[in-house]
Amino acid sequence: MKISAEEFATRRETLAGALEGLAGAVLFDVQRILYYTGFAFIPTERPIAFVLAADGRGGMLVPRLEVEHAQANAAVSEIAHYAEYPGERHPMELLRELLDALGVRGRIGADSDGYPWIFGYRGPALGDVEPIAGLVEDQMAVKSESELALLRESCRWAGYGHRLLQDYTRPGVTETEVERRASNEATDAMLAELGAGYQSQSIWGYGVEAGYRGQIGRNAAIPHALPGHIVFEPGDVVVSGATAPLFGYHSELERTMVIGPPSEAQRRLFEHMLALQDLAVDALRAGSPCAEVDRRVRAYYEEHDLWPHWRHHVGHAIGLRYHEGPFLDLGDDTELEAGMVFTIEPGLYDPELGGFRHSDTIAVTDDGVDWLTDYPRDLESLTLPL
Amino acid sequence: MKISAEEFATRRETLAGALEGLAGAVLFDVQRILYYTGFAFIPTERPIAFVLAADGRGGMLVPRLEVEHAQANAAVSEIAHYAEYPGERHPMELLRELLDALGVRGRIGADSDGYPWIFGYRGPALGDVEPIAGLVEDQMAVKSESELALLRESCRWAGYGHRLLQDYTRPGVTETEVERRASNEATDAMLAELGAGYQSQSIWGYGVEAGYRGQIGRNAAIPHALPGHIVFEPGDVVVSGATAPLFGYHSELERTMVIGPPSEAQRRLFEHMLALQDLAVDALRAGSPCAEVDRRVRAYYEEHDLWPHWRHHVGHAIGLRYHEGPFLDLGDDTELEAGMVFTIEPGLYDPELGGFRHSDTIAVTDDGVDWLTDYPRDLESLTLPL
Repeated sequence: MKISAEEFATRRETLAGALEGLAGAVLFDVQRILYYTGFAFIPTERPIAFVLAADGRGGMLVPRLEVEHAQANAAVSEIAHYAEYPGERHPMELLRELLDALGVRGRIGADSDGYPWIFGYRGPALGDVEPIAGLVEDQMAVKSESELALLRESCRWAGYGHRLLQDYTRPGVTETEVERRASNEATDAMLAELGAGYQSQSIWGYGVEAGYRGQIGRNAAIPHALPGHIVFEPGDVVVSGATAPLFGYHSELERTMVIGPPSEAQRRLFEHMLALQDLAVDALRAGSPCAEVDRRVRAYYEEHDLWPHWRHHVGHAIGLRYHEGPFLDLGDDTELEAGMVFTIEPGLYDPELGGFRHSDTIAVTDDGVDWLTDYPRDLESLTLPL
Repeated sequence: MKISAEEFATRRETLAGALEGLAGAVLFDVQRILYYTGFAFIPTERPIAFVLAADGRGGMLVPRLEVEHAQANAAVSEIAHYAEYPGERHPMELLRELLDALGVRGRIGADSDGYPWIFGYRGPALGDVEPIAGLVEDQMAVKSESELALLRESCRWAGYGHRLLQDYTRPGVTETEVERRASNEATDAMLAELGAGYQSQSIWGYGVEAGYRGQIGRNAAIPHALPGHIVFEPGDVVVSGATAPLFGYHSELERTMVIGPPSEAQRRLFEHMLALQDLAVDALRAGSPCAEVDRRVRAYYEEHDLWPHWRHHVGHAIGLRYHEGPFLDLGDDTELEAGMVFTIEPGLYDPELGGFRHSDTIAVTDDGVDWLTDYPRDLESLTLPL
């Protein structure tokens, strides 16, 4: 199920081919390195860099701790390592030596001008480098068949966790106990089925995560609420979220549910939300600009007098990051292409009623869309018993 | 228990006073913004920035979603907001307007040259800014009394979680079930005691986390192993880790434990590890350079022929990040000051026996050190029954 060595090689060839006039490229970002090499790590103050020479050879700068890990990686023919950070020689000196060893002489591209100053790291800028993060992001935005397969599998486990979450959510129990139970049981089921072959390769999580992030009752009107021990009550509108990172790939499944029979006012916003999501999916077509999806959705807000309930654009791309570009937003003119994958999640928020938002993970295809999530969306299926 | 508005104001005054010749400062980093304002958020593609004018007034750039949150913050007199990212006007245009509104004209300092390209964000560099991340990091490295109190409270809950972890770890049970049980029970106890006043304000966790990260048996020889469903076995050497973020502050408690009576070889490395930790704590004195602690510890490795077991330096500072500078490392000449807080964690690793590392969170004081963690370190206390 994981990405093959051949596919990683093809990705690197594509990047090398795009480095017109440059001698090579340096990448510092964890997901960008994962994309080109399959090498997963946790970013800290100890810098790690992947170097790609224009001739396609790869090299890696790692702390001593990671040398064996780097040596086992097929993408890498040269390794430079430092004993520790900050150490007696700065890691960026060793990066220069690595570039020399790979014969990279002349102007290079980099995804940031030196390793970012995170976790106490300090170091020099590379200086006079061509920014290539945009180029890399453009390549990452169009998913291959094997990436789509991983995203679909992630959606399957997110759905499994969400089903348990829905089943366990009842008046009188707390957010926290429902989330723990659903997430743990779904993670155990996933590990039992996928076995030792499962790898998260995500810095944001391991296994299945299903929960509410505090978006319960009136709190649900806050799109990114903070979690706590909230007790479910009859009449609550809840907004869930479930995901399951798999070899670095994330999906997103969110559902609006009502505890007990919905009121007329709840039903009204729910149905508008569903109509907005349908509209967005209909507008998601190869050849259109991303902005067009947001324009069509905003026209519906306008037409139905829903602006007081608007908070955010339609959605974002998803893959090795749980948010990535392009964005289904008025300001994004990127042309939609087959293989791009988006969350479709227009929302309606009301200070009295709560939040109304589904999110599905959907791929653009040559002739339409492919729903990678597969979970009921209608109000009847999402009304919880008292 | 949280940091007072007065203390945040004092921090901003200190920074404003250090901006010699600059008209103001822009900060993009989440923990640096938290440090000066108490404003906590989750970084995404939607940029957030804190602006400090040289006269001490503060401003904030936020997405529409965060306006009320920003308005409630005492550090801020001017707010600029954008509807969405990417949106029809780029957020960095609004940042320019915010600087104007605060009367910031002339050269500014910034902690990075523009918002970093994370989660699909793309935007211009600020251009011609003075890098001030180092200045800010230097200020953050020396903790106040109230920061020390939060770190001590974090250590208390990490210790509580670790006690449960130790009690539940037995042959035949899995890493995962022990971690879940200890972390959940400790989190519940913390929330029951601290109540609604508890805030994590950390992007890395919520509540108490106690576990092994796969550092069990032979896997323990890998300092940053990956987690899984490992079953404990008699004779295993395990390396634990516990923390509890509290208003953004992290502590670190790690213990080496042995399941059943330790072998002679295990006992030998354990006792060397303990001696190394004692040596490091003795060397941790205000007025000494950080490097001196590492030098003294390395001399012990040399003297006792332990180099094959060396993997990393003595420790790192800790606070709003779970790793931060300065570092107890040969290459770090920062002078130790009262109020600095470090993890002290020299380790010994053996491919056959596993890893041997304790980590304690310890503050430098005027006349010595203050152990913020309080947990047994001796082999007898850390030998688990079969």
